[in-house]
Parts: sequence; C-alpha cells; structure tokens
Amino acid sequence: MPEACANLVVKRFFTFAGPPHELILESGERLGPVTVAYETIGALSPKRDNAVLVVHALTGDSHVAGCYTAEDSRPGWWDIMVGPGKAIDTGRYFVICANVLGGCMGSTGPSSLNPATGRPYGLDFPLVTIGDMVTVQKALLDHLGISRLLAVVGGSVGGMQVLTWCARYPEMVRAAIPLATTPRHSAQAIAFNEVARQAIMADPHWRGGHYYEAGAKPDLGLAVARMIGHITYLSNESMRRKFGRQLKSRDALSFHFDAGFEVESYLRYQGNKFVERFDANSFLYLTKAADYFDLDDYASDDGFEGAETSFLVVAFTSDWLYPTEQSRTLVRQLKRSGLDVSFCEIESDWGHDAFLLPSERLHNLVAAFLDRIHREGG
Amino acid sequence: MPEACANLVVKRFFTFAGPPHELILESGERLGPVTVAYETIGALSPKRDNAVLVVHALTGDSHVAGCYTAEDSRPGWWDIMVGPGKAIDTGRYFVICANVLGGCMGSTGPSSLNPATGRPYGLDFPLVTIGDMVTVQKALLDHLGISRLLAVVGGSVGGMQVLTWCARYPEMVRAAIPLATTPRHSAQAIAFNEVARQAIMADPHWRGGHYYEAGAKPDLGLAVARMIGHITYLSNESMRRKFGRQLKSRDALSFHFDAGFEVESYLRYQGNKFVERFDANSFLYLTKAADYFDLDDYASDDGFEGAETSFLVVAFTSDWLYPTEQSRTLVRQLKRSGLDVSFCEIESDWGHDAFLLPSERLHNLVAAFLDRIHREGG
Repeated sequence: MPEACANLVVKRFFTFAGPPHELILESGERLGPVTVAYETIGALSPKRDNAVLVVHALTGDSHVAGCYTAEDSRPGWWDIMVGPGKAIDTGRYFVICANVLGGCMGSTGPSSLNPATGRPYGLDFPLVTIGDMVTVQKALLDHLGISRLLAVVGGSVGGMQVLTWCARYPEMVRAAIPLATTPRHSAQAIAFNEVARQAIMADPHWRGGHYYEAGAKPDLGLAVARMIGHITYLSNESMRRKFGRQLKSRDALSFHFDAGFEVESYLRYQGNKFVERFDANSFLYLTKAADYFDLDDYASDDGFEGAETSFLVVAFTSDWLYPTEQSRTLVRQLKRSGLDVSFCEIESDWGHDAFLLPSERLHNLVAAFLDRIHREGG
Repeated sequence: MPEACANLVVKRFFTFAGPPHELILESGERLGPVTVAYETIGALSPKRDNAVLVVHALTGDSHVAGCYTAEDSRPGWWDIMVGPGKAIDTGRYFVICANVLGGCMGSTGPSSLNPATGRPYGLDFPLVTIGDMVTVQKALLDHLGISRLLAVVGGSVGGMQVLTWCARYPEMVRAAIPLATTPRHSAQAIAFNEVARQAIMADPHWRGGHYYEAGAKPDLGLAVARMIGHITYLSNESMRRKFGRQLKSRDALSFHFDAGFEVESYLRYQGNKFVERFDANSFLYLTKAADYFDLDDYASDDGFEGAETSFLVVAFTSDWLYPTEQSRTLVRQLKRSGLDVSFCEIESDWGHDAFLLPSERLHNLVAAFLDRIHREGG
C-alpha cells in the first residue's frame, strides 16, 4: 500500500473578464469570461513576500504537487521538487500553480463552453499566446492580492512563461528560474509541432475541431501527436538505455506489424494514455503558442533594462529539443541587460524531460538559489 | 528550356521464383513469382569485371541516373554522382540499380497482385528483410550473368543492403561504399519509424492495408509519416538556414492554424508530393525492414573473416538519424576482421540527406576509391 499523502491540495477556480470587460488577446480578439484553475500550497506570509509561481509545460496542469485525497497515490507532476522541506519548500514559500489559458484542465480553452453559442468553442476559440497565458496568471495574482513574486519557476513551455513574466512585469518578479527552455523555437521544433498538429487534423474524428458533441474524439491522431512529442522529450542515449533494441516477446522478431520492439510498445502506451487525459484541440492551441513565442516580442535587446530580477537558468546537456546553446543565447541577452544571472548546464542523459526527473544537482541548485533570494529579503 | 538529357535509360523487369520455386524469405514464408524492376547504365566489359551495383534508400527506386526520354527534365535520384565522367563513371563502369523487394516502383511489393487471390497483396504480403532484398538483387545479377561486383554502393537503408551484401556474399564484392548508414537502428530511429507507421495505420482509409480497390488511399496518414521522416533527414542547422522562423506571408503572425511558418508550408508540400508517388503499405514494409536490420544477424564479430572486400565508409557530421558514431562502430568491426577500410567523416550541415546532395568531397572520394579498385584489376 502506498504511503498516505500528507500534503493535501485543492483545485480552485477564479473567473474574470466577463462581458463587457473581456480579455483583449495579443491577436486583438476578445475572450471572456475566463476561468483559471489553480492550486496553492503553503501559507502566504503576513508581508506577502514569499509567493512562488510555478508554471507548467505543454501538457501539464495546476496540480504541481501534493494529492487531492490522503488515499491518492499519484501526487502532482513536480512533487519531487515542491513540498515541505523540498527544493521549493512549501514550509517557507507559498506556491501557486495555474493551468494555462487554452488548456483543458480547468482553465478556459477550446473545450470550454462558448457563451455565444452555448456549445464548446472548438476552433472558434481564438489563438492564444504565451503572453496571453501570463496576462491570465497576472489577473489571478491580483485576485490573490499578491503584488510581487519571490520567484517564478518553470521548465520547457513553462520557461517561456517565466521569461515573459520577467519581460512584461519586471517589477513584480524578484527571481526567475527558467529550465530546459528557449527564447524562441527553432525551425526543427516548429516542424515537430506542425507534424503533430497535422496528425490530429488528419484524423476524421477531429471534424474541423468540432468533435465535442460527436460520438468520437480524434484519439488516434492525438496519440500519434503525443508519440512524436515523446521522442523529442527523450534523448537518443536515454532511449538506448531504456529500450535499446529489446524485443517485447522473449522470442525472435515477430515478422508482423504489432509492437515488436519495447520502444514501440512504450510509445503506443504513452500515446493511448495521453488521449484519456488531454484534449486534442488544446494540444493544437498550446503547441501553436509555443511556436509563436519569441522573447524578442516581449523584450528587445535592452528590454530587461531596469529590471532587478535575479536569474537561475538551467539547461541539460542531452536536451536536443531546446539545446543548451539556446539557453546560452538567453543568458548572454540577460547579461547584456546587466542582470544577475547564474547559468548551470546539468550533465544528463535524459534529454528534454530531465527537468521533470529526480536530480540532486537540480534540487540543490534551486533550493540554494531560492534560499539566497529569500534571505536577502525577497 | 532545360538541357536535353543525353543519358537515356530504360526500366526493365526480371521475374523469377515462380511456383513451385518460390523465394523462401527470412521469415520462413514463401513468395513468388517475384519481379524486380531495374535499370542499367554503361556497358558490361567483356571480362564482366566492371559492374557496380547501386542500391537505393527507403523511398528510392531503380531510376538512379539519366532520363527516360530526351525531353525528360527530371533525371534519376543520384544523377549528380552517376553518369559519364561522374564519380561513378558510366563510361568505365556498368551500373545496375534495382527497386527493392517490398517497394512500389516496379518490384514486387504489397501493392502487387497476389497470385493466390488475383488482388493486391495489401497486408497479406509477407514481411521482408534487408537480407531478402539482397537475395533478390543476387538473383538479378545471376540473371545478368554477373558473378562478381566491382563495387556495391548505397546510402542510408541502401547502406544496410551494402553491408548485407558484404556479409552474405563476400566473394562477390570487391569493394563496398556504405554511406550515411548504420549497422543497426537505434531505439530512436525505430521510434520515428514506428510513429510514422502509426500515422498511416491511424488513417481510416488505410483499411487494414486493403485500400487498393477502395476509392481512397491513406494519403493523410502517409503525408504525416513522410513529414516525420523528412525532419529526421534534415539537421537542426540546415532547417535553421533554410527556414529559420521565416513566415510565409510578408505580414505578422496569422493567428490561425494554416501554415504560417515557411517550415510548416515546406513540410506540408513534401508530405503532399510524396503521396502521389509512394504506396503507404510499401512505406510500412520498408521501414520495418530497416528497423529489423542488424548487421550481427548476417555477420558475427568475425563474420567478415576471409573477406577481401575493400571498404569506403562515409558519414556526415550533422547526420543525427544515423550519427557518425554508428559508422565508427561499423569501421571498428570491419577492421577487427582485418579488412581494408577507409573511413571519412564529411563536414556537412545538411544532416542525413547530405549523401544525396552535391559534395565535391564525396564526389572525389568515391571517384578516387573506385578508380583505385578498378586499376587494381577489380
């Protein structure tokens, strides 16, 4: 029997931007009302100076750590890093995590009801950007009465949100930890996302995005999309170690098209598991937001000028989706703005996903960095 | 008007293994009759000692060089390397290229008529291996009265055939040029192929492989499969150079799901173009054959012992599908067998596809190597 979870959390919802005060998106379109699903762990200090915003990656959610019930054996997606006595110590910090705009885990997205029609938006949902996601997070913080963050922390597409926070609201962010991220997508990263989107749109059950009220969802297309993504999250070396050319059956080659190699079976499993929890349209919107992201749209070369944010930039050697060189480019840009930047390239064979896996080095880096910032009085 | 093509070629067909003398495949299944489509350029010398077998990659065909008519402006897939006065000089060598078993360009494959039913095989076609492809090429050479090859040359999956030739028929191969290839697929390479296959099989028009007599083919699935492959054929750097984050329209971001970035538009074009010329089932069979390939199945550590084949192994620095380290592993194995091996890692930004692109270095290497072998008397 798994150990009972001591760190109980509740998913909450905040709704704002109801007509006629809709959110004006970067595209110029209006969206409202907007609901944001979020969770908090720890206690906000009387001085309100210990808030840490954790932002999630492409397919994450607000459930960053802890469990919904004591019997729940599956804690949040970054429970190894967030909790009492952990690197992001909820005994000291008030941690907030919200599902992104465009997502499907409680925040408004393409699967939400369109108030204009009373039916799910589908592709009538406007394209949202990383900047729009940050706008919604800012509204949530206003609602919570938090005017300054001790830190904003996130990996991958979460790292893009971290950078956008720092460029858009420098006075609100004391410290920032962008992990395994990039200031902008390479052509190759866009290419992988585009093929994943094409896989979804090629599924006849996708129906131009209006599948919510039909009998079936574009599960096969979404599974293929997830499998493509999954390959980019791992490294060649981690796949070699995990699977090599291992066959699923103890026998020789099967000479048919079933999953014969372990790696095939693993990918099929990942694809099938994903469709149970994720909305295909959200996958389209969130990958597009990642492709559109370009830090230069929020911060020109001197865009961080005047900011006093301290940065801990972390990259992983075997991350080929957002290679460490892209983090170095970011670090150079931050340093040109005269900012306090620590950069660490962690030796890891686990590819892009390394930031989600246990790492003593990452744990110690983040713990020490936050501790220093907190001691300095936030 | 394009220059008239001086190097005219004809596609020919050789059929063998008619019942009851069917080919016995590595899987143990029987297949026959088997037709092989092939082309030849140049003249076989009276001593029959100048034959060079060129083997094609995954989606290639027998049309290696030259044109079918004088007005044809699109020469074969390796016309830059094969022709009069070129690296593989058809003024000196008799070049043979055959479409692989399982293909769809004239050789027997899943789209061929199954004599047992009078309808296309579809998935009733047995799985074939790289070894089976080589068996068919050997039968063609027997038919042509060629008992020894001056050289066998091929890149990528073609390189796997080259290696299999050397392991299976060492006495028939004076020299071998495996390019941009690998002694076996990594888990990552298998993973990409598997996702591509899943994309095809997820297309409802695939119909379990029996789509030939239906109104529609699994074009959308095959296009996605091709797009996945295409990303792996290019390098991060070549995509950056070719596309970067260039937008298709002169305007800003379009904020919809049409192909906004140049790289998206390019991939869609490649996917759509491919479905006009290639059969989805052949894609399944040929990728599976590549995944199954393991040189150790044909040559153990001392499997090349006694062979007198000279090797020119060529790898390209930015090839991340079959990284140069895999060629080095191959070179070590060949050297352990006491073979004459030259290895060249060509500096290139163009990824796996580099072997198909103009390269003075590659041209000179291949020309000089073949010249030496030929002068030594084959």
